[in-house]
Amino acid sequence: MLEAMLKNAQAAQKEWALSHTQVRNDALEQMIHLVRRDQDKILSANRRDLDAASELPKALANRLALSPEGLSKLLQGLKVVIDQPDPLGTGMGQRTLPNGLSIEAIRVPLGTIGLIFESRPGVAIEAVALALKAGNAMILRSGHEAKGTVAAIVACWQEALTKTGFRADLVQQILDPDRKYVDALLHLRGLDLLIPRGGPALIQKVVAEATVPVIETGVGNCHVYVDRQADLDMAVNIVINAKVSNPAVCNAAETVLVHQDIAEQLLPELAKALSAQGVQLHADSRALSLVPGAVLATNEDFAKEYLSLDLAVRVVANIDEAIAHIEQYGTKHSETIVTNDYSQGERFLKMVDAAAVYINASTRFTDGYQFGFGGEVGISTQKLHARGPMGLEALTTWKWVGRGHGQIRS
Amino acid sequence: MLEAMLKNAQAAQKEWALSHTQVRNDALEQMIHLVRRDQDKILSANRRDLDAASELPKALANRLALSPEGLSKLLQGLKVVIDQPDPLGTGMGQRTLPNGLSIEAIRVPLGTIGLIFESRPGVAIEAVALALKAGNAMILRSGHEAKGTVAAIVACWQEALTKTGFRADLVQQILDPDRKYVDALLHLRGLDLLIPRGGPALIQKVVAEATVPVIETGVGNCHVYVDRQADLDMAVNIVINAKVSNPAVCNAAETVLVHQDIAEQLLPELAKALSAQGVQLHADSRALSLVPGAVLATNEDFAKEYLSLDLAVRVVANIDEAIAHIEQYGTKHSETIVTNDYSQGERFLKMVDAAAVYINASTRFTDGYQFGFGGEVGISTQKLHARGPMGLEALTTWKWVGRGHGQIRS
Repeated sequence: MLEAMLKNAQAAQKEWALSHTQVRNDALEQMIHLVRRDQDKILSANRRDLDAASELPKALANRLALSPEGLSKLLQGLKVVIDQPDPLGTGMGQRTLPNGLSIEAIRVPLGTIGLIFESRPGVAIEAVALALKAGNAMILRSGHEAKGTVAAIVACWQEALTKTGFRADLVQQILDPDRKYVDALLHLRGLDLLIPRGGPALIQKVVAEATVPVIETGVGNCHVYVDRQADLDMAVNIVINAKVSNPAVCNAAETVLVHQDIAEQLLPELAKALSAQGVQLHADSRALSLVPGAVLATNEDFAKEYLSLDLAVRVVANIDEAIAHIEQYGTKHSETIVTNDYSQGERFLKMVDAAAVYINASTRFTDGYQFGFGGEVGISTQKLHARGPMGLEALTTWKWVGRGHGQIRS
Repeated sequence: MLEAMLKNAQAAQKEWALSHTQVRNDALEQMIHLVRRDQDKILSANRRDLDAASELPKALANRLALSPEGLSKLLQGLKVVIDQPDPLGTGMGQRTLPNGLSIEAIRVPLGTIGLIFESRPGVAIEAVALALKAGNAMILRSGHEAKGTVAAIVACWQEALTKTGFRADLVQQILDPDRKYVDALLHLRGLDLLIPRGGPALIQKVVAEATVPVIETGVGNCHVYVDRQADLDMAVNIVINAKVSNPAVCNAAETVLVHQDIAEQLLPELAKALSAQGVQLHADSRALSLVPGAVLATNEDFAKEYLSLDLAVRVVANIDEAIAHIEQYGTKHSETIVTNDYSQGERFLKMVDAAAVYINASTRFTDGYQFGFGGEVGISTQKLHARGPMGLEALTTWKWVGRGHGQIRS
């Protein structure tokens, strides 16, 4: 079954790859129109999905639920994708060899992309929009709880594409809930990229087993380091925002590191503000007495992506100890320093190896929508091909185009 | 053992990554000086390697052999690497979010790179030069026949690095011939990239088994398509060059596709020229009568990377049949069309999916030295991260640097 889906996707993508920017944008405009037209249909499919999944934990049910406002925000993202410059056909550097042969790298689509995601149906709008704009076909496999909602969205995509004169096969959904299709996707020869977007278990399985090209996304054990010369109000604001604004996502902070010289001033105030938000603190032995209501943190706490209203706290001797802690426990996702010391800030930006490093800003900005990409297909925590939020360019590759007049190699 | 090598490489790379362009170039200059000083030492090590490998087939012995001229060409490549702009620290696009947060993607090194290569000792000069210039550490594993030559080269690298004030551990060689170290390298957690550079068996093993990030290099089943409106002398020159100038390499042509309208004119002449160079032709049934001395080609011939003085020939009805043939049998390496028809040429460039596509030029230009990179760490035939000859940029990644003044996400 997957082989046939892939073959149809490849055939459709070949035409799509040659289409002009305007045509691809027209299809996205159509999609906005159709989602508005079918809004009730999509939302009732979502209600049916929610009813059928009544046993879901609350956090997961929240992910699954789609509101009119949520849908409207997704369509805003679609507009941003339309407004972005077309990555395809862009020259990435041309040179003429001494013999007159011109060579130039030109951006082209990746081809057919597989996306395995959990039960967050909006992904079927934002990720597909990016994939299509970048000239690709996409095969979707959602968590089974979201299947109905995703099917309603995919129906809109397919109508948008056929109305624009292209094949519906550019966007396909694996509907059969059998897990064997996930396994088959991992080994689907000819698939140009497979992206797992979901929890650590899914991502680890895909990365460990897949023989098709994969981009690892998402696990985020992010830190806020508050340096000696920090604005303490700013520090409190950033920690609260990084932890509390959405604890269930990968760019939320999981540990605060505090310079020993300001621990006594900062920690009681920070603890108070966090407690008011319902955050449970896990403090190391040095921080414990300064943080009322905290429990003692273990090394497992520092290694954990809580994804909940829990936060580890540790007092460090200096910036180097903070950097070493991040190196040991971090997942190379997003790290931030709060400081007014220029050289310490620059040192942190240089020394910390992560997809995104910030000075005086929340870790929560590592997000395709925030970065202005209109959405994201995931946040890459690997170093090859894409790093951080994956927008249009992450879904392209290039070819070298050589134009000669008979050149041979001597 | 490998864990200790990696740990030392990582420690050394951390300092190296922060070094300025001039310092990294100084180390490469030192290397040029030291290879010249130790030329006799390196060449005698190479003679000992050759003596010990007297049972090697001639083609492999040729690869292993290092001449004073070969060494001098490698040092020329080193100079080109020195002259190239430093990729590190380069901004790849900056934007300021509506809230005033500045985000910018900055090129940084990958980290520690493993390279498994066959017995071609020059790789230990060109690939290491690129890796170091791009701020990385490298762990080398050469074919065992080249071990002594590579060790003499690595000794020069280590001296060049310590003389520049850095750690010798930036360049290390796995000397133990036990195959288990190759297997261990495939699973060496923390290695940022592993590149196999060698024959199809090695590459397939690495790609199929590795759990560390890998870039697939090298297998090249390349085609020359001669269109109806081609300059026939140019076509003959390009085919001869693509096949004969070095049949043992991946960018050599393995099949010629000829438009049926010019087959009668071109093929006898082409066959004569190729026979004079000792090429054995394998012709399809339509080409056979036009090509004296050819044997009948099977589908296996079209699928084969001969890497020898053999060449398949097929007559096609039109450019679409040529493109379909390349899609079926090609390995997405290098493909060329010979034509004076503008629209057919552009069609070929657009429709053929390969790392390099040419019009009126030999496939043999797909090469880091030819492209002006000073050498290459390999030729990527995959679509993720790097495509075609891998120079400095292929050995880097980036980080997103965010500079704020207290921004939090609303």
